Amino acid sequence: AQSSVTMFGVVDATLSHYANRSETPLGVAVTTSSTGQNSGGYASSRLGFRGTEDLGGGAAAGFWLEAGLLNDSGAGLGAGGGLAFNRRSTISLSGVLGEIRLGRDYTPTFWNDAVADPFTSNGVGINLIATASGFNSPGQVANGFQGNPNYLRASNSVGYFLPPNLGGFYGQVMYAFNEANKYDPGGLTPDVPNSQRAGRYVGGRFGYTKGPLDVAVAGGRSTIGDKFFAGTTSVIDIWNVAVTYDFDLVKLFGEYSNNKTKTFFSAIPPLPNAFGFTSPGANGALIGATVPVGPGLIRVVYTEVKYNNVAALNQVIPGLAPNPKSEKLALGYVHNLSKRTALYGTVARIDNTNGADLTVGGPAFYTKAVNGSVPVPHSSTGYDVGIRHVF
Amino acid sequence: AQSSVTMFGVVDATLSHYANRSETPLGVAVTTSSTGQNSGGYASSRLGFRGTEDLGGGAAAGFWLEAGLLNDSGAGLGAGGGLAFNRRSTISLSGVLGEIRLGRDYTPTFWNDAVADPFTSNGVGINLIATASGFNSPGQVANGFQGNPNYLRASNSVGYFLPPNLGGFYGQVMYAFNEANKYDPGGLTPDVPNSQRAGRYVGGRFGYTKGPLDVAVAGGRSTIGDKFFAGTTSVIDIWNVAVTYDFDLVKLFGEYSNNKTKTFFSAIPPLPNAFGFTSPGANGALIGATVPVGPGLIRVVYTEVKYNNVAALNQVIPGLAPNPKSEKLALGYVHNLSKRTALYGTVARIDNTNGADLTVGGPAFYTKAVNGSVPVPHSSTGYDVGIRHVF
Amino acid sequence: AQSSVTMFGVVDATLSHYANRSETPLGVAVTTSSTGQNSGGYASSRLGFRGTEDLGGGAAAGFWLEAGLLNDSGAGLGAGGGLAFNRRSTISLSGVLGEIRLGRDYTPTFWNDAVADPFTSNGVGINLIATASGFNSPGQVANGFQGNPNYLRASNSVGYFLPPNLGGFYGQVMYAFNEANKYDPGGLTPDVPNSQRAGRYVGGRFGYTKGPLDVAVAGGRSTIGDKFFAGTTSVIDIWNVAVTYDFDLVKLFGEYSNNKTKTFFSAIPPLPNAFGFTSPGANGALIGATVPVGPGLIRVVYTEVKYNNVAALNQVIPGLAPNPKSEKLALGYVHNLSKRTALYGTVARIDNTNGADLTVGGPAFYTKAVNGSVPVPHSSTGYDVGIRHVF
Repeated sequence: AQSSVTMFGVVDATLSHYANRSETPLGVAVTTSSTGQNSGGYASSRLGFRGTEDLGGGAAAGFWLEAGLLNDSGAGLGAGGGLAFNRRSTISLSGVLGEIRLGRDYTPTFWNDAVADPFTSNGVGINLIATASGFNSPGQVANGFQGNPNYLRASNSVGYFLPPNLGGFYGQVMYAFNEANKYDPGGLTPDVPNSQRAGRYVGGRFGYTKGPLDVAVAGGRSTIGDKFFAGTTSVIDIWNVAVTYDFDLVKLFGEYSNNKTKTFFSAIPPLPNAFGFTSPGANGALIGATVPVGPGLIRVVYTEVKYNNVAALNQVIPGLAPNPKSEKLALGYVHNLSKRTALYGTVARIDNTNGADLTVGGPAFYTKAVNGSVPVPHSSTGYDVGIRHVF
Repeated sequence: AQSSVTMFGVVDATLSHYANRSETPLGVAVTTSSTGQNSGGYASSRLGFRGTEDLGGGAAAGFWLEAGLLNDSGAGLGAGGGLAFNRRSTISLSGVLGEIRLGRDYTPTFWNDAVADPFTSNGVGINLIATASGFNSPGQVANGFQGNPNYLRASNSVGYFLPPNLGGFYGQVMYAFNEANKYDPGGLTPDVPNSQRAGRYVGGRFGYTKGPLDVAVAGGRSTIGDKFFAGTTSVIDIWNVAVTYDFDLVKLFGEYSNNKTKTFFSAIPPLPNAFGFTSPGANGALIGATVPVGPGLIRVVYTEVKYNNVAALNQVIPGLAPNPKSEKLALGYVHNLSKRTALYGTVARIDNTNGADLTVGGPAFYTKAVNGSVPVPHSSTGYDVGIRHVF
Repeated sequence: AQSSVTMFGVVDATLSHYANRSETPLGVAVTTSSTGQNSGGYASSRLGFRGTEDLGGGAAAGFWLEAGLLNDSGAGLGAGGGLAFNRRSTISLSGVLGEIRLGRDYTPTFWNDAVADPFTSNGVGINLIATASGFNSPGQVANGFQGNPNYLRASNSVGYFLPPNLGGFYGQVMYAFNEANKYDPGGLTPDVPNSQRAGRYVGGRFGYTKGPLDVAVAGGRSTIGDKFFAGTTSVIDIWNVAVTYDFDLVKLFGEYSNNKTKTFFSAIPPLPNAFGFTSPGANGALIGATVPVGPGLIRVVYTEVKYNNVAALNQVIPGLAPNPKSEKLALGYVHNLSKRTALYGTVARIDNTNGADLTVGGPAFYTKAVNGSVPVPHSSTGYDVGIRHVF
């Protein structure tokens, strides 16, 4: 086999500090914090191998194997700390009709969260809906909004991409198998939750770009749980819209993302659920801007996440309990030493209200009782100062 | 160090379906099945690095590091799901007298199972003796034939290969250390089973190829168990013979493989074993053909595995109990888009009798009681439809 | 991203034997031994990727990702047996003022142990202080000298290197973060030992090289333990000095290394510690030589480790109990087939006295009672015979 592989990657190292402050109703503050030398404050560190083969007639075959890495310790991001092609691992066949892609890849619904984020989903400035989707919210125990295991990427997927020459229109769809073991007759299925439907993902994204404008909508459903014998299936439904407009002097970014957890019943739902008990959600919004300054780039973002229906009370009579909310302000500067090497700095602050507990990074909020009073998550602040090198 | 490394690999993605049917004596059928986007239906996905250095006088040094990967999820095949050079990891010194090779490599006895298999040991069409050797048979609990941990490859090995210019004759031998901790005096050896001799492999393969003919015999012994204080050592002895003949219009494949589990006693064996209690085996056979059709290749195989002496009854008076048997029929087509990229499809069906439980893939047979009657493994069917790209 | 990566590596395979003999006071000897096909007898096997980018004005950016590997089994050295860039994983910015380096790298204090070792810290001939620092000594349970988790390398580090053109002077400093979670107020810190200060490393190394002479001193502190509420912090303090002098016909090597475990008390130390209870140590020394012989190199080393204050008795009145001591003699020959490929052989023997238990490799000494008498570690012998290939 004649080698035609391109090696590529990113090594990004940062000095980071995070401080997460919770407060008791009596105003006693507890702060957890950490400082360290971390990875990927501007762009996720990675090592990849990719190649394409021209098959003639406009057709091509290609592969893409991309492994994440933590260059502060050298660890990979496979299950056991070894290198694995967890970022992307695909084989493609493409032609005039578009591209078929199989393997592990980004979900269509994630793209809008990233392209509309001046901090491109990395570091302390990251889009808040990404933070909320990757981790469980505080209300999770009481039927709250729940993180999405297929938020960012999905394994075992089949994707289709429209061809590139459609007058500015672009689009993709993806289906990811859960690869569950099926039993026939179904009555013999073992009573193991999340073994039959959980893990599936289906979604799509369509957009239009012309000159300075880029706008796209995406929607998807990620199956996050099931109980075969109870006849229930839980999903997260996502739709979002992202817009960027480049005025040269300044580029503007905006996104709205709607995320809702739903549980479907194959039988008549039990009484308590008739009140919409099963649809807690989290809606994200972001507005941001980047301003080129010589070889540098100023980046600024306001992003928020509003939870809804996470309190059991609100699922009976909406509005009875206040909804949790997180708001983040982030400001950064990137100084490009070359096209491949950049220094960067970012500061960010999150304010959580009504029980929201998102952070910019670092240790969890302190929520154990102090003198009989339980502190609730309040603010999270942090910074990254680092260097990113692309190869 | 001047770099002289060749990167190479395979990315192979397939949509696969498996259905495994067991039946109770009363004719109640239970089918377990799965569908998914998997890896390696035609050729095992991998990423490798290799190089050779000319040392002058016909001598050369070389290395070969080859990692398996699951491109459906990006995972590696190391113990913890990370990349590891589990497929091959060797250093060689070669010259006019042949090649010395150290490290992890294929066993000589495996080669015949692969070269005589039109499906080259991958996907649903794979040679049945490979399936039987990689997994335990149902009789395993009652002294049945047991899978061989060093069936495919062995670590810690030293190998020797005959030089290539011997008028068509070729050959290799391999010894793999078990690297056990020894104690002197031996009476202090901890009473831990499989700590003293298990893990060793010794084997060899010799063949002749001329024009359309290729024939090879191989034999080996894999030490699979020991009890130091009981004085027992268990081995699997393998010998096999493979023939291929290429008539241009059709290439024929044939193999016979004899596998026997033996237990040796350093003291007088206890009574029950005097009846040959300890030599259950599995014999495999394969006949197959490939037919080139333009840029494509039709592949067809009949392969079977017959177990013997796996029932305790047969070890007293052979023939008393019926021997388990598996038979497989597989048919496939490969369409080469180029030398490096191919589309492929394979269908296969296994029929198991007398308790054999081999599958073409997917979940295990259902063997728990249904209404008081226990289903036994019956048939296994499946298909792969995929794309393979070599780089 | 235009690829500019250099792939490099080492594959080193050896046949090794180790025999470790302990003796009871009555002279009964117990030997544990092993033989196998191992990796890295001359140089550690590895696979790496590195590159540099010229930023103009004498400045450059660079990265270095280097993974250790065990080519006898193909395993990587990540936590779960997968490949990880555990050997070095850094990004650098360099210029006329020197180099800033972030990530995982060698500690400055380790360098002297390696450059003054004719066996370059590999195989059975390795510098004894490396053996003592990587493993716990027998007295460890009774406040003995303890191995140093950051002996060889440290993650999460920030390093600075002097520029290369200082008339023969060179130097580096390193600080490695422990990345602990801090609590404010501190009284809420969970009572988990080694969660607050353990893991930190700080050190430096300065040297001078001119013609045949190379001399360097290094010092460092590695924080190996802490108890937040007891107010204790345990460190290993290291200083060492290495000299090499190349007389052409023979190159001489010498090193002295001083290692001391100390425990600091933020409150008044409890009484028993007033006697220096907390400063057990291990001091290493090495003298060696290499003699070029045509394409070969003879290597010979005497190296020893003397423990001090490891017996509780000696911490009250020094000299009451005899101090453990290990002495090693090693002899080797390297035959270079080319600049990249070499054959090598090494034999080594360690004599342990007064309870020291260092080995050249292989299984631990047998120290369980035999007929009511406990054997103590005595001698360890072993050899490596192998081949090393650099690419």
